[in-house]
Amino acid sequence: MKHVAVILSGCGVFDGAEVNEAVLTLLHLEKQGAKYSIFAPDVQQMHVVDHLKGEASGEQRNVLTESARIARGDIKPLSELNAANFDALILPGGFGVAKNLCNFAEKGADSTVNAEVLAVGKAFKDAKKPAGYMCIAPVLLPHVYGKGVKGTIGTDADTANAYNQMGGEHVDCSVRDIVVDDAHRVVTTPAYMLAECLLDADEGIKNLVEKVLFMAA
Amino acid sequence: MKHVAVILSGCGVFDGAEVNEAVLTLLHLEKQGAKYSIFAPDVQQMHVVDHLKGEASGEQRNVLTESARIARGDIKPLSELNAANFDALILPGGFGVAKNLCNFAEKGADSTVNAEVLAVGKAFKDAKKPAGYMCIAPVLLPHVYGKGVKGTIGTDADTANAYNQMGGEHVDCSVRDIVVDDAHRVVTTPAYMLAECLLDADEGIKNLVEKVLFMAA
Repeated sequence: MKHVAVILSGCGVFDGAEVNEAVLTLLHLEKQGAKYSIFAPDVQQMHVVDHLKGEASGEQRNVLTESARIARGDIKPLSELNAANFDALILPGGFGVAKNLCNFAEKGADSTVNAEVLAVGKAFKDAKKPAGYMCIAPVLLPHVYGKGVKGTIGTDADTANAYNQMGGEHVDCSVRDIVVDDAHRVVTTPAYMLAECLLDADEGIKNLVEKVLFMAA
Repeated sequence: MKHVAVILSGCGVFDGAEVNEAVLTLLHLEKQGAKYSIFAPDVQQMHVVDHLKGEASGEQRNVLTESARIARGDIKPLSELNAANFDALILPGGFGVAKNLCNFAEKGADSTVNAEVLAVGKAFKDAKKPAGYMCIAPVLLPHVYGKGVKGTIGTDADTANAYNQMGGEHVDCSVRDIVVDDAHRVVTTPAYMLAECLLDADEGIKNLVEKVLFMAA
């Protein structure tokens, strides 16, 4: 049974992991016969957004603690993720990726990545183990894989340009499809960068999980 | 297209709505061609549980504001739910139902229900519109429907006894199955009262959604 590490970035689309993407990732891993372990960095969120009002609330919350809401408490600090114990890595999206796993939301193409996230991503790359990055998470790829890594964040021109400026090679993609970089063993899908309903996200994520598990064979 | 009202009770199994159940409910509504609107009461949570440590954190959070994390901001206060505008009602579970929508977690068979939740439940009952209650949410049924309402919380003897003490008629049920009370037009499924994986919850919730939409025909 293939064992996949899943990294979350909080709980809630505007300041953490996109909840639907996280749940659908786990659902499709189970449907396709894989098991998973969930991780998140033990750091403070960049900020907390009141998801009703759509504005910062001034609270402080921890990424690992809030991610535990999606994981039903079954989660470990990212510092304990050893790539040697897994067959593949998957990162759901949400603004949490751009705010808590790196500072892309603030810095764009000048962004830097949380050291633990970068080290884990590179460990999977160095072991030639496949990875799936969805929604905004592909902005991490140029940092992890270096120049020329193909990926998609959908069709948003500004984000695609930033992806290319960082050294990646952006490929436009429709919401239910995936982009595969066979050389780097990376799969991406737009998810809620483009999804207008759960069915959109469900289909793209199903395809991403399927391809990642196939590559892990 | 059938329009279903979904009531959430926060965001996170230990103090709010069970996240997987909420997402799977919305997913199956979409898969089966229904649309939905999401509501939650604008009240403070009973308490906030740190889902990593499994203990109360001393924070204060609002049920509507936290539910908005699952709803991606697309949610309204429960006071705005008019049963006349909907074909059916569904309540996902999570401890939030027993802590924020009623006080079952504290009072058991002596529990009382939030006035808005009770009024909405009764409005669907009076209009003979079907409803689905999953996980721990069926403990609301004896309050809403009165004596003899059939429902399941799975197989937990203490909770089943409390359900019967409140006037309901508990029916044991396996995790992927549903219990249907045709007279009261109510469907229940154990979900995470028994689920050991997402596939368990997915199947039971799919069946609940299917039956509720069939009854709404």
